[in-house]
Amino acid sequence: MEKRFTIVVAGGKGLRMGSEIPKQFLTVQGRPLLMLTLENFHSFAPSMPLVLVLPASQQAYWERLCREYVFRIPHTIVSGGDTRFHSVLNGLKEIQHMIGEQHTTADDHLLVAIHDGVRPFVSHDVINACFEAAARDGAAIPVIPVVETLRLVADDGSSHTVPRSCYRLVQTPQTFRLSLLAEAYAQPYSEAFTDDASVVEALGHAVTLVEGNRENIKITTPYDLAVAETL
Amino acid sequence: MEKRFTIVVAGGKGLRMGSEIPKQFLTVQGRPLLMLTLENFHSFAPSMPLVLVLPASQQAYWERLCREYVFRIPHTIVSGGDTRFHSVLNGLKEIQHMIGEQHTTADDHLLVAIHDGVRPFVSHDVINACFEAAARDGAAIPVIPVVETLRLVADDGSSHTVPRSCYRLVQTPQTFRLSLLAEAYAQPYSEAFTDDASVVEALGHAVTLVEGNRENIKITTPYDLAVAETL
Repeated sequence: MEKRFTIVVAGGKGLRMGSEIPKQFLTVQGRPLLMLTLENFHSFAPSMPLVLVLPASQQAYWERLCREYVFRIPHTIVSGGDTRFHSVLNGLKEIQHMIGEQHTTADDHLLVAIHDGVRPFVSHDVINACFEAAARDGAAIPVIPVVETLRLVADDGSSHTVPRSCYRLVQTPQTFRLSLLAEAYAQPYSEAFTDDASVVEALGHAVTLVEGNRENIKITTPYDLAVAETL
Repeated sequence: MEKRFTIVVAGGKGLRMGSEIPKQFLTVQGRPLLMLTLENFHSFAPSMPLVLVLPASQQAYWERLCREYVFRIPHTIVSGGDTRFHSVLNGLKEIQHMIGEQHTTADDHLLVAIHDGVRPFVSHDVINACFEAAARDGAAIPVIPVVETLRLVADDGSSHTVPRSCYRLVQTPQTFRLSLLAEAYAQPYSEAFTDDASVVEALGHAVTLVEGNRENIKITTPYDLAVAETL
């Protein structure tokens, strides 16, 4: 029997927003982004365990927000690390702890989605497609086409158009078989780990591309926040 | 004395919007997109001539809309061609006609911006920066960074992450010295002409990249239209 987990990573320090408030706590339609994201995954699968990775320094603030907004979606909080790699690793350890003696990590029916806390608008179809592709292939990520002309800039500042149809923009949830993910995150940290897929690829395992939804934006600037208000 | 012109290209058949109405006529905050775009360039420089390239089949509809909305921004309408190349060429001929005997096309102080009719939100700073860079270097286009992880997909479907900091997304107005633009558009048409810059680059002339503004989106889907409502 397949069992699914989701790790929501909320590491933002909020610096890019020009704001003191870390971006995951900024509100869209009156609610903190991070609550919208957790609610979205909870409504996708109410019994799926949600692990929230949050910097230790923000946890008291988050718990106060949860009381203030009467936020009742069950989730387990773990502390963030220095990098995304270390934050995901902490989330992964929590899932391995949850599984405990019921399963071994090597069980191929255990699946983990890793999602950005500031992407509240991923569709349920995309979440489901990622889990299904991960169950089949081991690793899956949602991507969308590049809709504008794309140029590649060389070291000397010169640039040329590249065929945009050969490129994809990567979203989350990046979704994996737990066994594969655990093997990947047992590797020593490398600066080449730009996203979760890259950690798995460093093992030599290919990643399946799944069609994402365009509304699934990462909210990191005041512009994104304005866009988010309409979605 | 520098003299600036703008060609606004509105070739859209509206098919991608799932709508009978070509996308340049869809309304944002109650006004057709194309009017917002023309108003933006008019307010940037009220005396700058605006040439609107529109399919012949849409011109009667556009003129009716202008009466209905009491749209009084001066602009000259020319018919669109089969491709963007041919549409821009028609706009360019109109500018050469306007100049008439006052100047020769070879005058280095004549500048032309070519802008998408469905990009109403380009900032005046960006328009100005494009004209200034074109005056200095001959050809300039606004670009923005890629903010998400970017992957390159190979023919066999495999893909790998590429460094997104080496890539830029291209916007308009693509802006040129008229002399250079006329030389470029005297070339025979090629399918490799994906945007206006590519026509100039086919002459071997480099294009200068200018920092664009992120709100300057190309409105081509219902999602974009929803985003545009907030901007």
